[in-house]
Amino acid sequence: MIITLTTDIGWEYAAEMKGKILSINPNAKIVDITHEIMPQNIRQGAFVLYSIVPYFKKAIHIGVVDPGVGTERKAIIIECRNAYFVGPDNGLFIPAAKKLGIKKIYEIKVSRKASPVFHGRDVFAPVAAKLSTGIKAKELGKEIKKYVELDFGKATVEKGRIKGKVLFIDRFGNIITNITKENLEAKEFHVKMGVVEKKIKLYPSYGYAKKGEILAVIGSSGFLEIARREGNAAKYFDAKEDMKIEMFF
Amino acid sequence: MIITLTTDIGWEYAAEMKGKILSINPNAKIVDITHEIMPQNIRQGAFVLYSIVPYFKKAIHIGVVDPGVGTERKAIIIECRNAYFVGPDNGLFIPAAKKLGIKKIYEIKVSRKASPVFHGRDVFAPVAAKLSTGIKAKELGKEIKKYVELDFGKATVEKGRIKGKVLFIDRFGNIITNITKENLEAKEFHVKMGVVEKKIKLYPSYGYAKKGEILAVIGSSGFLEIARREGNAAKYFDAKEDMKIEMFF
Amino acid sequence: MIITLTTDIGWEYAAEMKGKILSINPNAKIVDITHEIMPQNIRQGAFVLYSIVPYFKKAIHIGVVDPGVGTERKAIIIECRNAYFVGPDNGLFIPAAKKLGIKKIYEIKVSRKASPVFHGRDVFAPVAAKLSTGIKAKELGKEIKKYVELDFGKATVEKGRIKGKVLFIDRFGNIITNITKENLEAKEFHVKMGVVEKKIKLYPSYGYAKKGEILAVIGSSGFLEIARREGNAAKYFDAKEDMKIEMFF
Repeated sequence: MIITLTTDIGWEYAAEMKGKILSINPNAKIVDITHEIMPQNIRQGAFVLYSIVPYFKKAIHIGVVDPGVGTERKAIIIECRNAYFVGPDNGLFIPAAKKLGIKKIYEIKVSRKASPVFHGRDVFAPVAAKLSTGIKAKELGKEIKKYVELDFGKATVEKGRIKGKVLFIDRFGNIITNITKENLEAKEFHVKMGVVEKKIKLYPSYGYAKKGEILAVIGSSGFLEIARREGNAAKYFDAKEDMKIEMFF
Repeated sequence: MIITLTTDIGWEYAAEMKGKILSINPNAKIVDITHEIMPQNIRQGAFVLYSIVPYFKKAIHIGVVDPGVGTERKAIIIECRNAYFVGPDNGLFIPAAKKLGIKKIYEIKVSRKASPVFHGRDVFAPVAAKLSTGIKAKELGKEIKKYVELDFGKATVEKGRIKGKVLFIDRFGNIITNITKENLEAKEFHVKMGVVEKKIKLYPSYGYAKKGEILAVIGSSGFLEIARREGNAAKYFDAKEDMKIEMFF
Repeated sequence: MIITLTTDIGWEYAAEMKGKILSINPNAKIVDITHEIMPQNIRQGAFVLYSIVPYFKKAIHIGVVDPGVGTERKAIIIECRNAYFVGPDNGLFIPAAKKLGIKKIYEIKVSRKASPVFHGRDVFAPVAAKLSTGIKAKELGKEIKKYVELDFGKATVEKGRIKGKVLFIDRFGNIITNITKENLEAKEFHVKMGVVEKKIKLYPSYGYAKKGEILAVIGSSGFLEIARREGNAAKYFDAKEDMKIEMFF
């Protein structure tokens, strides 16, 4: 059984989780998604999980972006068709789990022996390892109905203007927005973020633009991205997470 | 058999080690601990190894933080209960190996064909792979008694003042010290590093502090950490590795 | 069967490729080479692939450094003895494949359903996974004879002067050149890059130099490297990729 790890804790702390998992289930197949989510950036973690889940046929996904660790925030298992999510109840899994369809949610009882600063190792890793051996979620937690929500927001279209926001900036400086293909009426538009306005084109991929050109593409997860060919679009627009973005034709 | 890799050489060089290991033992289960130890920072490597070993039931740990590669520094195998360490004789493994209990130490004979700049690939990887196939350490090296020491130092308590030092700074800017839980008498104290002094509280975890607050927690390896909620404690104190830290109540 | 991944796309996008591979072949053994090639730096990717291939007995190597994705650049399989390469036809695999000996090259037909910005996930990963299950390359593409070339150039020796260039800078600030051992006549020489000239020694490894000393070593892939003991040689010379380097005795 595949166990994936999506965390902001860095490789060396994640290794302690891997040791725990393999001690309980030596046959677990661990897949590192990333350990370099920006510290405590729950939404970026949620976006990564949302993006990757369709490509795993069957897996247990552990997520550790967990600023509330050791406080009263709950530890949960979300059961979906062919997938479990194990981690904090802070919204991290919600977009991904909704994409797959949430079946049930369980609250994990946290042992008093667990390090209050590292539930990833002492709570989530052992629970995921046990799930991977075939133990049922209901034996590892009690069902709950409420959970912390998180969504990426929906872009709106009004009088020919699309209004959305910046979800996050990736390592190339591409600006990932919450605008989807369906919102777009044309292949050429004005985009406005903060004080910067620019007329750009929507291309099938980066390579169609000239060197240095600002462009738009539909990213591999279906959201509109603003990029700069061989450059950094986020710098050009001075874009930050959550910044409003307006587009008009 | 699990083979772990803890290095400062970056992923692409580490990949050559993985190729070597899998060529000798295709069934080896390689676990990347990290390849991003700060260049040549033996103590950070030692700290990572010290932190992770308790979570692996049985493993061979390769370590490559090796500024002395190709000089007369020895290549060694350390045999512990349910673990081997393979790498340079520069102290890298000592805190971890002592935690597990050192049984024997062997010096590996380095072939003249080994690249003098990359024993990780040409010496440690093949030795670890052979150990993983069941070959005994005594067939791969000759026993030695002396080795290079490394310890994290012990914080001292004197007239109500705890005196310790900064072991290293993690990627969140948390300051990891050599002060342990046992040294602490109260949940509130003054901490002094360099010219900065600050009264702070010890919390069970980061989430109890207010945004921006400087706080102390017992880290997941048992050492006191100074952190800043949603911020960078190392910057606040201008903390550097090895800096003295004083605490009083 | 081992499938290696060498990309510039970051861990989280690479994870989508891993999910795809494991969905097609759950027994594939995926080895991460790196996902942190400098964005769109085809030559650095080519150098990494060139360096790692000798250490894998048998493997399928996927490479994704792909600025032309979604344009008319071809998607290819290169068949070598005991190795396949799968990725863009942009030179990325050529030095590595020539080292192993190119047998045949196939063009992969790209489905219209593939995301035009992420062939790594939608084209290369499934093709590599199918190869790993035993499907032949000729069933996955049609043979072609032409391909995009890439080489590292050859250093020349003229009137006692070696003229080469900087291939790239590694994470330690070491300067990797295209000068090889065979070019060197002495263990001490002048090196000139840009406006900086310096007399340096060739050592068997870094550890022979004094702290702060600029030195040369033959790197683990056989190319001359200029390094600085416990420092950053690239900063010292203000070295950039492709910069000319001259050496004389």
